[in-house]
Amino acid sequence: MYLAQAFAAQRRGEPLTPWQVERRALRPHDVLIDIDFCGVCHSDLHQARGEWGRQLFPMVPGHEIVGTVTAVGAAVQHRHAGERVGVGCFVDACRHCQPCRAGLEQYCQQGMTATYNGLERDGLTRTYGGYATAIVVDEAFTVAMPDALPSDAAAPLLCAGITLYSPLRHWQVGPGTRLAILGLGGLGHVGVRLARAMGAEVTVLSHSPHKQADALRLGAHAFHSSSDFGAEPQLRGAFDLILNTVSAPVDLDALSGLLRCDGTLVLLGISPQAQSVRATSLIGQRRRLAGSSLGGIAETQDMLSFCAAHGIVCDIERIRMQDINAAFERLDRGDVRYRFVIDMGSLR
Amino acid sequence: MYLAQAFAAQRRGEPLTPWQVERRALRPHDVLIDIDFCGVCHSDLHQARGEWGRQLFPMVPGHEIVGTVTAVGAAVQHRHAGERVGVGCFVDACRHCQPCRAGLEQYCQQGMTATYNGLERDGLTRTYGGYATAIVVDEAFTVAMPDALPSDAAAPLLCAGITLYSPLRHWQVGPGTRLAILGLGGLGHVGVRLARAMGAEVTVLSHSPHKQADALRLGAHAFHSSSDFGAEPQLRGAFDLILNTVSAPVDLDALSGLLRCDGTLVLLGISPQAQSVRATSLIGQRRRLAGSSLGGIAETQDMLSFCAAHGIVCDIERIRMQDINAAFERLDRGDVRYRFVIDMGSLR
Repeated sequence: MYLAQAFAAQRRGEPLTPWQVERRALRPHDVLIDIDFCGVCHSDLHQARGEWGRQLFPMVPGHEIVGTVTAVGAAVQHRHAGERVGVGCFVDACRHCQPCRAGLEQYCQQGMTATYNGLERDGLTRTYGGYATAIVVDEAFTVAMPDALPSDAAAPLLCAGITLYSPLRHWQVGPGTRLAILGLGGLGHVGVRLARAMGAEVTVLSHSPHKQADALRLGAHAFHSSSDFGAEPQLRGAFDLILNTVSAPVDLDALSGLLRCDGTLVLLGISPQAQSVRATSLIGQRRRLAGSSLGGIAETQDMLSFCAAHGIVCDIERIRMQDINAAFERLDRGDVRYRFVIDMGSLR
Repeated sequence: MYLAQAFAAQRRGEPLTPWQVERRALRPHDVLIDIDFCGVCHSDLHQARGEWGRQLFPMVPGHEIVGTVTAVGAAVQHRHAGERVGVGCFVDACRHCQPCRAGLEQYCQQGMTATYNGLERDGLTRTYGGYATAIVVDEAFTVAMPDALPSDAAAPLLCAGITLYSPLRHWQVGPGTRLAILGLGGLGHVGVRLARAMGAEVTVLSHSPHKQADALRLGAHAFHSSSDFGAEPQLRGAFDLILNTVSAPVDLDALSGLLRCDGTLVLLGISPQAQSVRATSLIGQRRRLAGSSLGGIAETQDMLSFCAAHGIVCDIERIRMQDINAAFERLDRGDVRYRFVIDMGSLR
């Protein structure tokens, strides 16, 4: 068993404070990872505040983890001590069901094991995340970090990056695709870079006109700001695919109207409230409203290779672990471009 | 110009009463059709009562028309006098846009011309439907009725039939597909027959337990009745595709839960109210919510050939034109198995 230094929310809504977390002794396929950096996802904030259904406290958030393997279990085959690895949003799955066999562990029919605020497959043992100096994970749920990617700016690729990469691949985005990304935040900004590298014609849709310069700098071909996209005639039927990264309710009927016949609007952000949609918004042009979550382990490894080949990382602001509560407050105000990443050296 | 005997709603919500409708003189590509039978679609009732947005009165409903060509325009190439033909829900489209060029006239970007309660391409001239002894239609918007199909029981195929056939083909339903059809009415009952003939494993979902015997008689492999399908554990993740034929709000979250990973819930019925859906219902298993409307002219002709080859028609109750108001009342109560068809001989 290993003791790691961590920051935890002891109770719902409380600030994060120092805590020690016990990591299990290595099983045959486990690796022990010294965590170098951990990204701060908006879902960390939601869960620490108890805004998403079931929450388990004390909670150590963090699922954008990059670190170095320092010990391996007896049967580990694909990882070695000294190797730089990543861990994303889940650390296990049933490994038997149809989605697991298809490499879609994120859609495991028995439920994936979340990196934190979750339960191991035994249904009893709690999971604690990457706001900590170390973590123990089955090697099958780690990815190798390509040499070309820096540990800090690549950490958010493990959640934000794969959340965009997977739908871009699934809906076959490439040259000729007219793609819109709604929202330019942690998810959207990496989505623009990925989609541009795939050859798509990328438009950023935002409620914030001041994000135009950044959208174009990141690689978008066009930027539209509006409080009501449905009222913009030049946008009607303009897109093959819209990726909605906003985690608040949006006007699904107005957004659907921006799709061509057979186009798809994909929800990536989780709005805590139900949203309303009219049947006619979908029936009129055989449009689709879909959801997409993360990506599988193999796809995450593909994504990292793609990012390494195209020089794609996230725009980040490095913080110390001790500054997490101030960072949460800034995140809540949307005051970050585009991801906080915790330097775990600050805890050692 | 031709005068046809018809039944019309003179004002919103009023009973249908006898009226004379003027049909235009034949243009080069027009055919004059003596109407033999016209099906009674639930949308006829909605529109005659003024329940769907814009309505134009006087209104002659009817868009499930089978008749006989009695005269052809000078340039008509594909139709001849004496031929039995059908006319469905639209009688024109722009013919230039991408959907029109792809044979998807129902999704014409400039809007198809509805068979009734619509405007011709000039934006001025009213259209009047098939509750009449005759109609004039461009030959390109007629279909040939295969000899094997009777005029009365095949008439509803032109709306109800194609509305189910098109999504079954688009979502590639065939052997191995686990399909659910929600609602066993005018749409659903022909959907069961079509899907069964395509080789799918067909389940009917209904709120009415008394429809079980009919569902099995029509060819369904299974029938489930529930007031809350989300509460039925054996149905979770059970279907590749669900076709929702109900034109009232349903629990989209509960229905989504019946889909496997990557499954699709297709809305066919038009609920007048917006419906609510949670992002998590779609994101969790990359599910899709889609809409589908009618089918194109070429696909409608395919559908009729398919029905002729497989002996598929609708279950109908023939009525006289003079009994339409009583039929509307019964339709409103769901008291029809499964489609009223008007014998236009009753108007001559």
